[in-house]
Amino acid sequence: MLLKKSIPVSYIFGKIKNELPYVLVVGLVVNYLTGHFRNLIPQMPVAIPTFIGTAISVILSFKISQSYDRWWEARKIWGSIVNESRTFVLQLQSFVSKDRQKEIRSVAYRQIAWCYSLGQSLRGLDAMANLDKYLSEADMNEIKRHMNKPLAILQLNTRQITHLREEGSMELFSQVQINNTLVNFSNAMGMAERIKSTVFPQTYRLFLHYFIYIFVVTLSIALTDIDSFFEIPLLLVISSAFFLLEKSATHLQDPFNNLPTDTAMTTIATNIEINIKQLIGDPNVPEPLQPERFYSL
Amino acid sequence: MLLKKSIPVSYIFGKIKNELPYVLVVGLVVNYLTGHFRNLIPQMPVAIPTFIGTAISVILSFKISQSYDRWWEARKIWGSIVNESRTFVLQLQSFVSKDRQKEIRSVAYRQIAWCYSLGQSLRGLDAMANLDKYLSEADMNEIKRHMNKPLAILQLNTRQITHLREEGSMELFSQVQINNTLVNFSNAMGMAERIKSTVFPQTYRLFLHYFIYIFVVTLSIALTDIDSFFEIPLLLVISSAFFLLEKSATHLQDPFNNLPTDTAMTTIATNIEINIKQLIGDPNVPEPLQPERFYSL
Amino acid sequence: MLLKKSIPVSYIFGKIKNELPYVLVVGLVVNYLTGHFRNLIPQMPVAIPTFIGTAISVILSFKISQSYDRWWEARKIWGSIVNESRTFVLQLQSFVSKDRQKEIRSVAYRQIAWCYSLGQSLRGLDAMANLDKYLSEADMNEIKRHMNKPLAILQLNTRQITHLREEGSMELFSQVQINNTLVNFSNAMGMAERIKSTVFPQTYRLFLHYFIYIFVVTLSIALTDIDSFFEIPLLLVISSAFFLLEKSATHLQDPFNNLPTDTAMTTIATNIEINIKQLIGDPNVPEPLQPERFYSL
Amino acid sequence: MLLKKSIPVSYIFGKIKNELPYVLVVGLVVNYLTGHFRNLIPQMPVAIPTFIGTAISVILSFKISQSYDRWWEARKIWGSIVNESRTFVLQLQSFVSKDRQKEIRSVAYRQIAWCYSLGQSLRGLDAMANLDKYLSEADMNEIKRHMNKPLAILQLNTRQITHLREEGSMELFSQVQINNTLVNFSNAMGMAERIKSTVFPQTYRLFLHYFIYIFVVTLSIALTDIDSFFEIPLLLVISSAFFLLEKSATHLQDPFNNLPTDTAMTTIATNIEINIKQLIGDPNVPEPLQPERFYSL
Amino acid sequence: MLLKKSIPVSYIFGKIKNELPYVLVVGLVVNYLTGHFRNLIPQMPVAIPTFIGTAISVILSFKISQSYDRWWEARKIWGSIVNESRTFVLQLQSFVSKDRQKEIRSVAYRQIAWCYSLGQSLRGLDAMANLDKYLSEADMNEIKRHMNKPLAILQLNTRQITHLREEGSMELFSQVQINNTLVNFSNAMGMAERIKSTVFPQTYRLFLHYFIYIFVVTLSIALTDIDSFFEIPLLLVISSAFFLLEKSATHLQDPFNNLPTDTAMTTIATNIEINIKQLIGDPNVPEPLQPERFYSL
Repeated sequence: MLLKKSIPVSYIFGKIKNELPYVLVVGLVVNYLTGHFRNLIPQMPVAIPTFIGTAISVILSFKISQSYDRWWEARKIWGSIVNESRTFVLQLQSFVSKDRQKEIRSVAYRQIAWCYSLGQSLRGLDAMANLDKYLSEADMNEIKRHMNKPLAILQLNTRQITHLREEGSMELFSQVQINNTLVNFSNAMGMAERIKSTVFPQTYRLFLHYFIYIFVVTLSIALTDIDSFFEIPLLLVISSAFFLLEKSATHLQDPFNNLPTDTAMTTIATNIEINIKQLIGDPNVPEPLQPERFYSL
Repeated sequence: MLLKKSIPVSYIFGKIKNELPYVLVVGLVVNYLTGHFRNLIPQMPVAIPTFIGTAISVILSFKISQSYDRWWEARKIWGSIVNESRTFVLQLQSFVSKDRQKEIRSVAYRQIAWCYSLGQSLRGLDAMANLDKYLSEADMNEIKRHMNKPLAILQLNTRQITHLREEGSMELFSQVQINNTLVNFSNAMGMAERIKSTVFPQTYRLFLHYFIYIFVVTLSIALTDIDSFFEIPLLLVISSAFFLLEKSATHLQDPFNNLPTDTAMTTIATNIEINIKQLIGDPNVPEPLQPERFYSL
Repeated sequence: MLLKKSIPVSYIFGKIKNELPYVLVVGLVVNYLTGHFRNLIPQMPVAIPTFIGTAISVILSFKISQSYDRWWEARKIWGSIVNESRTFVLQLQSFVSKDRQKEIRSVAYRQIAWCYSLGQSLRGLDAMANLDKYLSEADMNEIKRHMNKPLAILQLNTRQITHLREEGSMELFSQVQINNTLVNFSNAMGMAERIKSTVFPQTYRLFLHYFIYIFVVTLSIALTDIDSFFEIPLLLVISSAFFLLEKSATHLQDPFNNLPTDTAMTTIATNIEINIKQLIGDPNVPEPLQPERFYSL
Repeated sequence: MLLKKSIPVSYIFGKIKNELPYVLVVGLVVNYLTGHFRNLIPQMPVAIPTFIGTAISVILSFKISQSYDRWWEARKIWGSIVNESRTFVLQLQSFVSKDRQKEIRSVAYRQIAWCYSLGQSLRGLDAMANLDKYLSEADMNEIKRHMNKPLAILQLNTRQITHLREEGSMELFSQVQINNTLVNFSNAMGMAERIKSTVFPQTYRLFLHYFIYIFVVTLSIALTDIDSFFEIPLLLVISSAFFLLEKSATHLQDPFNNLPTDTAMTTIATNIEINIKQLIGDPNVPEPLQPERFYSL
Repeated sequence: MLLKKSIPVSYIFGKIKNELPYVLVVGLVVNYLTGHFRNLIPQMPVAIPTFIGTAISVILSFKISQSYDRWWEARKIWGSIVNESRTFVLQLQSFVSKDRQKEIRSVAYRQIAWCYSLGQSLRGLDAMANLDKYLSEADMNEIKRHMNKPLAILQLNTRQITHLREEGSMELFSQVQINNTLVNFSNAMGMAERIKSTVFPQTYRLFLHYFIYIFVVTLSIALTDIDSFFEIPLLLVISSAFFLLEKSATHLQDPFNNLPTDTAMTTIATNIEINIKQLIGDPNVPEPLQPERFYSL
């Protein structure tokens, strides 16, 4: 997540470092051609690039707002993971026999591990990294043979809660209530995986690029009266506006890609660890994660 | 679902291969007429096609975003099928007596069959294809006499769960909890069928085409000063922009049509099979489905 | 619901057969006046109708998307009626004693009757038409004295389910679960009634018509240079675009008016009848309803 | 709620009777100044008012759609009150002992009173008016000492239902189910109060007026070539379009203000009274409320 | 929350007091340069700033509506806190033994404290201020050692309710029902924290400012024909429109920042205190909080 700190210009323009040279080349070529074959090339009314500009802004505005929705949904999913994690611990303390503190602690630790593991897995990193701080060796071995690590952790917790009820440390009715929270974890995980695995319709991105280049060509023909000394920078400035918007939207729409615009999953997971440990009275509370220069992960 | 791979140009322009010839013909005819009857045909202010262009972009932007909503809702429905399928197995393991592993396995396999069958049925393909890998012969016979195959599978699972409770392998209270998950499957199935069976208001599509042709005619009259050598490609380029957007939206809005833009139901169902089999410890786990050249189904 | 079939032109232009003559008259009058008092009437810049066109498209785009939302919500409500009806039968089979097949059948038939009755009632038709195929005479008499027929059917089902529990054919806990489904029916009914009884803010419709006429007047003044032979058709074509969009939206926004754009309630109710009868093993399954020429009801 | 009847012109233009004189004055002043100091005042390109017009329509379209959302949410809340009221009575009949008809009737009457009282309270009218038709004297006295009358009625019903369970006329499990319906009433009440008490961001309204006046000034400078005999009416017509849209949105966004655009709460409450009384077999059913000339309250 | 009172002009223009001087400087510099190097600087078509203006309004309209959504979601969260707080007290009175009034009162007071504490904590103020009016000393000490004070209060209430069930003053089933309300408090708290901690994508804000300045530069070049005496105020007026909209959106999007545009959390918490105290019959009811000059906090 980008923070309210000054974002380096290099970061901003690094986004469009591949597109601007193309625009420059297109501008120069059109400029050269219109200069040398002026009487062959027709008078292009400015209305033509205007049309294309309208089409561009229609798709851009659609893409920006859908990307934001994906990004915001991703954030909401992780927000609900925070809420449900706290609720989970409160429910364990409400419904499990007082003499089963060790088991509550073990379930709570697995929940912390689940948060970290889900974050890693969504980013395509090692989903078992550092989990040995929260899980027993038996758990680690069990998880290894699963393709979906967070799902395996969820199964371990479901199993232990079933065991607690079977041995009489919890009522069936309470188990059902806690089961609802586990269902919510399963849903949150699946929703995040859905965002991760669903590619935003690629055609709109292709059309956008296609239209922006047509826009650049027609605009540079329409502006032949202006000195090329002014025209080329103008083309770059206007097309960079469109490209910057498109790139920002593209980054927002994939919020689990290990980029500065990601949902700050590691920071959130650390906060969950703090909350859970304070709720179970564990003294070993970590510090909140410090952000990077202009973003937090 | 289109992937982040280079999409063939033939695929893109194949979408509008029926519309462009019309535009070409219209452009040539208007060009011929305005050339031969120049003093009869009035000076068309460029503002007229602009108006029509505005109307076009209003409807296009509406259509694009509603189509996306249908497509995204379809994906959400299948996402929830993933989540609920996992939850379903975890609930069976939590609430059914440990000595009923065979029955749990049989219910879980039926759930896998349900996913494949629903996908086939939504695409209008054979809803019983390959189901014999997951279902007993008795089940297959029972399903045959139903018009709605996935609903029949759901009924079989509901029946077995009722049976498990009646024989005492499950509490009534647990049955109710599992029943909620079955309700969610029924809802997901109905929601997908709703998207499949509800035609997007056809009038908007008609008006769009109507407006685009009026746009082409008025624009080509307004551009009579430009050499036809330039005018015709210009008309094609601009109208292709509108047609491409319209076609992309039209494909997105029907995400169960066995097209590259479909919700990737077969891929998702395979992933559900993998998840379910790993959760019940079945060693016979399939490989994830490999995508096609630039999309996955 | 309009189908993917060719929609007759007469249907399309029948929608605006009241508006176009007005536009024709306005165009002719303005044309006559500007012709005869040319030096009295000022040079109208084209920017003026442009402004009004902008205002028109702002309201149009708002109206189109809200109308679609009403239409889509209506379809969602009926989709949820499909899902809940299936769920309802599955729940009856899960929770009611096996020896009460007759009662289950009777409740299921009442549910079919409720679907048909709700559809008729929303369309302002006879809400008791054909119900005797599904209901006993005693039921018919009971319903007669109610103003809201579908609500009366719902009460009859609630009563029978309460009776089943009181006589011990169902647990209280199962009754509560089935009661949730009945609550969903009550909600679906109320939501559809809400859409039916809530008039879309009329002022926006008035303003739209007001603006379109001002647009026509100012545009026809601005176009005085164009020969009236071309100007009048142009006015008709452009204003018909706006009127067609407005009318389409107006029809969509009232999806229970017995029009081709309606939610296809009779078709859906027939499908529910098929599903329910196959679930309870009733051999007397009807054929799916055949659509009209270009729509289904 | 405005009905599908002809809305008086006086009602429409009464909305902007404060704004139009200002526009008239501004137009005349600018006209006078530009007439007398023509060579001092620059040539204003029409593009300048166009910009401002764009900004105006951006905010207007935002405001119109958010206002509609508030209005539609208000209607949804009252729709859910209808549904839940019916459900409430059906649940009482399902879960309370058959020999407690008097208590069921008394709870149902309190629910009717709650609907009327909530409507009055939201409109800032006497929240106890006419309640003695539905409530006992003891109830009336109890309610008097509360600031929030509908909340007090809700507490009375909650109390009686608790009493019914304590005396054994209802199971705890059924009480919990009915309690969920009471929670929904509490939510509906709170949601309506939220809409009532939350002022739409005032700044947007201020900016809109500010922009419209700037628009009028710049437009009247830009149109100096047109005879003032035509210019002033033109200014009035165009600015009235913007003001009418703004006012309509403003009225919609506060749907509990005792205005013709209100949610028709009294009509809805009367319908609830009819439904409830027919469900409990009360013969004393009122007539549906007749609408006013062009709206219903 | 800004009220329906006249908002001081100083407040409005205070928002953009940092931006206008920049615009002034840019305008003067461009004016000076275009005056002195007139034949070097090209004729800039007005279409160029129009493009940029279009891009600006696309992003602005996106930003305004997303900011409003954040602000409205924040208000909804606090609205649900109101509803759930009332429900909470009604549930305690329904499900806890009549002889436990002292405990009910103590839980209700903690709920009041939770509301105030959450408001303070979201605004970054002392989350324990004034809590000693509602909490015992033991509670205060317990809360102190937690980083998240409202979460600690929630845990205390969860603990006391568990205790009430363990000592037999409540059924397990009722505890589960009340637990659902506590889950809703946990969710509301987490949702508010999510809005507080999630920075709106910063890039859009940067691009907006970047575009507005480019707009100012190109517009002032395009307007070289106008006397600078008129041009500079014109630039200021138009750019102030864009800046004011941007700033208003920015303030709305962070509704927990101790600003006049905040969600009125203190006012709402006071109303909750009034409601809760009247429901438990506590005579010590505070006055509703009086608003500030033009807003309430």
